[in-house]
Amino acid sequence: MTARKGKRLKSDMGSSTADRIVVRGHDLVEDLIGKVSLGDMAFLELKGRLPTHQESTVFNALAVTLVEHGMTPSAIAARLTYFGAPESLQGAVAAGLLGIGDRFGGSVEEAARTLQEALAGTGAEVDVTELARKIVATHKESKRPIAGLGHPIHRPIDPRTPKLFALASENGFSGRYVQLMKAISVEAERSHGRVLPVNATGAIGAIASELDIPWKVTRGLAVIARAIGLVAHIQEELEEPLAAEIWSRIDEESSAR
Amino acid sequence: MTARKGKRLKSDMGSSTADRIVVRGHDLVEDLIGKVSLGDMAFLELKGRLPTHQESTVFNALAVTLVEHGMTPSAIAARLTYFGAPESLQGAVAAGLLGIGDRFGGSVEEAARTLQEALAGTGAEVDVTELARKIVATHKESKRPIAGLGHPIHRPIDPRTPKLFALASENGFSGRYVQLMKAISVEAERSHGRVLPVNATGAIGAIASELDIPWKVTRGLAVIARAIGLVAHIQEELEEPLAAEIWSRIDEESSAR
Amino acid sequence: MTARKGKRLKSDMGSSTADRIVVRGHDLVEDLIGKVSLGDMAFLELKGRLPTHQESTVFNALAVTLVEHGMTPSAIAARLTYFGAPESLQGAVAAGLLGIGDRFGGSVEEAARTLQEALAGTGAEVDVTELARKIVATHKESKRPIAGLGHPIHRPIDPRTPKLFALASENGFSGRYVQLMKAISVEAERSHGRVLPVNATGAIGAIASELDIPWKVTRGLAVIARAIGLVAHIQEELEEPLAAEIWSRIDEESSAR
Amino acid sequence: MTARKGKRLKSDMGSSTADRIVVRGHDLVEDLIGKVSLGDMAFLELKGRLPTHQESTVFNALAVTLVEHGMTPSAIAARLTYFGAPESLQGAVAAGLLGIGDRFGGSVEEAARTLQEALAGTGAEVDVTELARKIVATHKESKRPIAGLGHPIHRPIDPRTPKLFALASENGFSGRYVQLMKAISVEAERSHGRVLPVNATGAIGAIASELDIPWKVTRGLAVIARAIGLVAHIQEELEEPLAAEIWSRIDEESSAR
Repeated sequence: MTARKGKRLKSDMGSSTADRIVVRGHDLVEDLIGKVSLGDMAFLELKGRLPTHQESTVFNALAVTLVEHGMTPSAIAARLTYFGAPESLQGAVAAGLLGIGDRFGGSVEEAARTLQEALAGTGAEVDVTELARKIVATHKESKRPIAGLGHPIHRPIDPRTPKLFALASENGFSGRYVQLMKAISVEAERSHGRVLPVNATGAIGAIASELDIPWKVTRGLAVIARAIGLVAHIQEELEEPLAAEIWSRIDEESSAR
Repeated sequence: MTARKGKRLKSDMGSSTADRIVVRGHDLVEDLIGKVSLGDMAFLELKGRLPTHQESTVFNALAVTLVEHGMTPSAIAARLTYFGAPESLQGAVAAGLLGIGDRFGGSVEEAARTLQEALAGTGAEVDVTELARKIVATHKESKRPIAGLGHPIHRPIDPRTPKLFALASENGFSGRYVQLMKAISVEAERSHGRVLPVNATGAIGAIASELDIPWKVTRGLAVIARAIGLVAHIQEELEEPLAAEIWSRIDEESSAR
Repeated sequence: MTARKGKRLKSDMGSSTADRIVVRGHDLVEDLIGKVSLGDMAFLELKGRLPTHQESTVFNALAVTLVEHGMTPSAIAARLTYFGAPESLQGAVAAGLLGIGDRFGGSVEEAARTLQEALAGTGAEVDVTELARKIVATHKESKRPIAGLGHPIHRPIDPRTPKLFALASENGFSGRYVQLMKAISVEAERSHGRVLPVNATGAIGAIASELDIPWKVTRGLAVIARAIGLVAHIQEELEEPLAAEIWSRIDEESSAR
Repeated sequence: MTARKGKRLKSDMGSSTADRIVVRGHDLVEDLIGKVSLGDMAFLELKGRLPTHQESTVFNALAVTLVEHGMTPSAIAARLTYFGAPESLQGAVAAGLLGIGDRFGGSVEEAARTLQEALAGTGAEVDVTELARKIVATHKESKRPIAGLGHPIHRPIDPRTPKLFALASENGFSGRYVQLMKAISVEAERSHGRVLPVNATGAIGAIASELDIPWKVTRGLAVIARAIGLVAHIQEELEEPLAAEIWSRIDEESSAR
């Protein structure tokens, strides 16, 4: 660690001296605490600057959408973990977050990836209908589902989608990514002959792309939002424990002969 | 899981039907998305109701304070984990959160616990100076440090503390918990004969108690805030990777003979 | 990381050159692979030397005891996590391990701690009956349960205990820690007036102490063993998935109005 | 959870009654504790039966190979996590395991997958040279590296590979998977014109396939083995702490202006 000539370790996230704390170039005490909301702080952390009013509205809307989904596998895992390790609330939240993978948070990421890769290097003149056609065809050929379309429960439409798209539009973030996402839905419905509307993860993937968030980071929006939800589930578990009951039912049924 | 007469599994966190999603009694689409910020959503999740303007200011201030602390052990662990498992951003964040334990998030919790246990069952007439004296004496006797006092870097005072206490006061949250925390500092300085000002975790523990957040949940504030910081660190790691350099320096030095 | 005069980073765990890998002072290829079993390798890792035949028998017995307990909260959490993040088997195992805390692995640790703290600094002449009396009295006074006694299912005795104690005795590891653990059980039964036999975690805590494993590390025995069990649960989940069914039952019941 | 007619929750991993614990069909107390080593117990967990002597030798050799690699990113992450959360040894191990992803454990998995997919549905008469040619060509075409070949440090050969292949051969597990792995190396060296010997992860992937372990589970071998190594690193950290020094060096260098 000493003699070797290596790369300098450098980070722009934050630093401290005796009387000052700087976060992303802003004085934490003077400029952020009491002036900036948690959602705007998240924007600052990710983008390196505070959001405009429009950006704030849209970014907070995306995050708010992802906070709570009731008793998901992730919430149940967090509660069961807390039951075994009540000394470690952070461990229970971590266990819950570990389930925000390819099946859940991954769909936001996959939608954003599809859009960002398709539009990389293109300009304002791009033909989104044509792009949508190619994307649907490629997925059909390789028998892969298109991320961001359809929903097992919210049918025929996901109620979050029109709300998110309306907010994006009102605030100037209904650009090429949103248009392409919508075009993919239209084209997929035509090609597959069934209703395949844009779901919440598709809308979030598209709008996060409008906000210039790299697709590899979009899964992080779900992680941030779900951390909130999981702390709240653990609080409910503290007051009204369910884990022991869940365990004994499953144990009893699964070991019955 | 079927035949057994057990406790009913019941949760008030959220539920969905085909066209409606309810979070903590609020219609997600109609009442929350686009109307409520992420910090206020966190308040709703934890308290079961939306915050007043004053509560919002204070609650967001607490959370904002905890988001970013530069290259902490937790941020380094997240980056090293992402290096080994780039397929799982959630795993890297989870690894980072696992370090928000007794040494870090724990100090907020410990401060809140001390205050909440001391004031449990007391009324407005309680003598906080007297309580502070007892708390300091008990800790001194058992040689335990008092959570929420002093700081290795921020000396003589932690710049976040006066800001947080001022915000609490301006918004009507400078009650008995804040007074007791301050009194503990005064008494500890007198008893130990050295400067022991309230640090940020002490201020947060006291103000979270004013907001009626149970001490067992206060560590969750750090977890929520740090999840944001960790996603941002991983984004920086994606752009400017440090993990390989950290690894090779440590590996080289530690295995040198 | 360069200029500062700090502590040298030094580790004795392992090191590599182009043609040689050394683990705990042993040549991995020449001396360990194909010659040493996984359990003995774990002993080497923890103790810095390979076990005798007797130590190997006893150490492997402890670990084997902790591998599998059916559908525990930890196994269920791992399966639910894998459902959400099938790209990350390590994440599912990690989620499961996070539940090996104070309630489960913690009881081995607590038992070992009680024994090691009680016998610290004592010699062969120590009166274990007298020590046991003090331990039982202290716990009774502070209303804390004694770790390692009694079991909700395995009544009147835990079938693992006599087996483990017999193995310890046959192999020369039935010393003061085991005697004290047994004396605590006798004294607790006398004092509380009910059957309180040493359970498996009490036996493991005592025998691990005979093997000179520090109590802070004993929880690690459960972690090591359970990692095996959790990988096997995930393999079963791959072949016969249960997570979706568990989720939908809990979700349905918990959100019913 | 009650009224719904769903799939029966069923597991064959283990079950308990008051006086008996069954693991994978074996009586834990009568047949396993004291009779079976930890490695063989892992085999039983994964395969549903105890290993033959030959299987035991080979399986334990694979696992032993993966236990310890010195100060890896995963070991450093575990130590940093333990520094922040000393109350949760399981959290520190979990943090370390979370780094056993695509870059590390993933290479065993990827090697096993390549071999198992290539040989699926083929018989004894399969032409491994021809298959190897196809595999190398396909990877070259899509510019993907072939898992299990080459090593940054262990050059020109990985010393673990000949040892593992020799053990496999002596014990009757040098079948088509091992032959194909070797043929891929020969063909890759020919095609790329440089030395590309089978590394340890390639050998482990091939031999695990000989043992009929599904490729999706092979990453679990690394997870099981590394859990042991991580507990040992945390024990060393307890005795000789490095985390604070690592933190302060990185923090100092990264926040210097």
